[in-house]
Amino acid sequence: METYLECIPCFYQQVLNAATMAGADEKTKRRVMDELSKIIPDIPMDVSPTETGTQLYRLVRKVTGNNDPFKKAKEKSNELAMKHYPKFKKRVENSSDRLLAAVELAIAGNIIDHGITTSLDIQKETDKIFSEEKETIKKEDKRVFDYPSFKKAVSKAANILYLADNAGESVFDRILIEELRQHGVKEITYAVKSEPIINDVLAEDAVFCGIDKIAKIVESGCASPGTVLKFCTPAFLKMFHGAEMIISKGQGNFEALSDEKGPIFFLFKVKCEVLARYVKGKLGDVFLKNNNEYPT
Amino acid sequence: METYLECIPCFYQQVLNAATMAGADEKTKRRVMDELSKIIPDIPMDVSPTETGTQLYRLVRKVTGNNDPFKKAKEKSNELAMKHYPKFKKRVENSSDRLLAAVELAIAGNIIDHGITTSLDIQKETDKIFSEEKETIKKEDKRVFDYPSFKKAVSKAANILYLADNAGESVFDRILIEELRQHGVKEITYAVKSEPIINDVLAEDAVFCGIDKIAKIVESGCASPGTVLKFCTPAFLKMFHGAEMIISKGQGNFEALSDEKGPIFFLFKVKCEVLARYVKGKLGDVFLKNNNEYPT
Repeated sequence: METYLECIPCFYQQVLNAATMAGADEKTKRRVMDELSKIIPDIPMDVSPTETGTQLYRLVRKVTGNNDPFKKAKEKSNELAMKHYPKFKKRVENSSDRLLAAVELAIAGNIIDHGITTSLDIQKETDKIFSEEKETIKKEDKRVFDYPSFKKAVSKAANILYLADNAGESVFDRILIEELRQHGVKEITYAVKSEPIINDVLAEDAVFCGIDKIAKIVESGCASPGTVLKFCTPAFLKMFHGAEMIISKGQGNFEALSDEKGPIFFLFKVKCEVLARYVKGKLGDVFLKNNNEYPT
Repeated sequence: METYLECIPCFYQQVLNAATMAGADEKTKRRVMDELSKIIPDIPMDVSPTETGTQLYRLVRKVTGNNDPFKKAKEKSNELAMKHYPKFKKRVENSSDRLLAAVELAIAGNIIDHGITTSLDIQKETDKIFSEEKETIKKEDKRVFDYPSFKKAVSKAANILYLADNAGESVFDRILIEELRQHGVKEITYAVKSEPIINDVLAEDAVFCGIDKIAKIVESGCASPGTVLKFCTPAFLKMFHGAEMIISKGQGNFEALSDEKGPIFFLFKVKCEVLARYVKGKLGDVFLKNNNEYPT
């Protein structure tokens, strides 16, 4: 997916948000925005917004001197989501279609995203996920929720590469991975970022959420909000191109990989108008779809 | 009111919006945003966002070559609001407190604002205004809706300076001005912008909406989204400082004049988070308040 002009104001919101999370004072935050202004004319429109995101967050880290502005937010998300693990797990176990329930939860968990807000209320969001009617997602337009194809792909895949998104959300990923195991998937690899980027999952977050017990954790080599292949290690790329099925979580990964062909299933919540238009959906839509049928 | 860092992303949204309304192609719109990036580091934070707005829209006019990007939108708003004039007028006439009903309508009409969107559905918005329960605004927190003070000021004022905001909205202003006349206000001056700026009222719009029959129309000399006094003519400033009461419509005028002392009543709908925080209100709040009690 390319960058749209509407992404430019959002780039400013993102760096301001990240600088705020880094604890920067007003002067420093202003400097971050001024520095961004210097590179705006050089930002290409034919790459994905998430690829440009790499540069943006690097800029914030450099100007604020804080290498991981979302560290505390990530720890809080991990702890809170882990606290709720038993009740979410129970909900899935009590469902008539456990895989579907786990998929729904995994997408609902994608709301734990600090990309465009500093004021995310994790407690409220997880409460919301839990209180949501199980039927909500099933009733969505099949155009943006293709569970039958997903289920079919799972039944055939001996190995799955799972591209993680946000810290905390890993707990929901864990529940889905546990169900994938129940469905006979032998090998599951959970790919995380190699450096801090927004509140994206790092290896330490994945371990905290217990992913290491049920999947192999690998670093992609990438430090972008999405998995931008040109920034990934050769080892990861080999894994990516050899995977029988890829589960790609989050909007950033969709932005990075929407033009890729292959057995990729995207699972995310639509969080901006640009993307809503791109997928012909609307803000807040839950999205589950294989990439081969996209408008490109 | 000063500028906040959150205003910077909004500046980009505004120029993109205006360039789109100007019919610019993607390349030209990108050039507008790149040109904005060049001036971002020089934008002062200690002036109001609306003062900076003057520069932004000048930039759009220069790069796109379109001197009045919102001309058609203004004509459409004027025509549609005029079409609804009889029913709005009747609603006020049938109210137990006609002045209050007219004030409510005048604020509700403030939704006709193209500052941050190209997709304003005037028909829908006017329908919404009409279908709204009359009691809605009265129940608002007095902190942001001080009708008693407004009514008292009206009863004492022999002359009122009315600062217009958006085209179309003039029709609602007209109904309020007609009620002010009924309340014995002898002299009412309706101040409009001197040059095209967003969809703000120009003299021609005011005349189209019939304001010339009930008030004296004057140009402020200003071409900012709000009435920035330093850009106004000496003749207008004399009028401003000599007015017994000033009715200031819209968020732009509030941004420009919130630090001024004097008999100014601000009437507007809160349209951004920065302003909501500033007035300790929330997005969408209707606001009617004298300026002497503000947090500054």
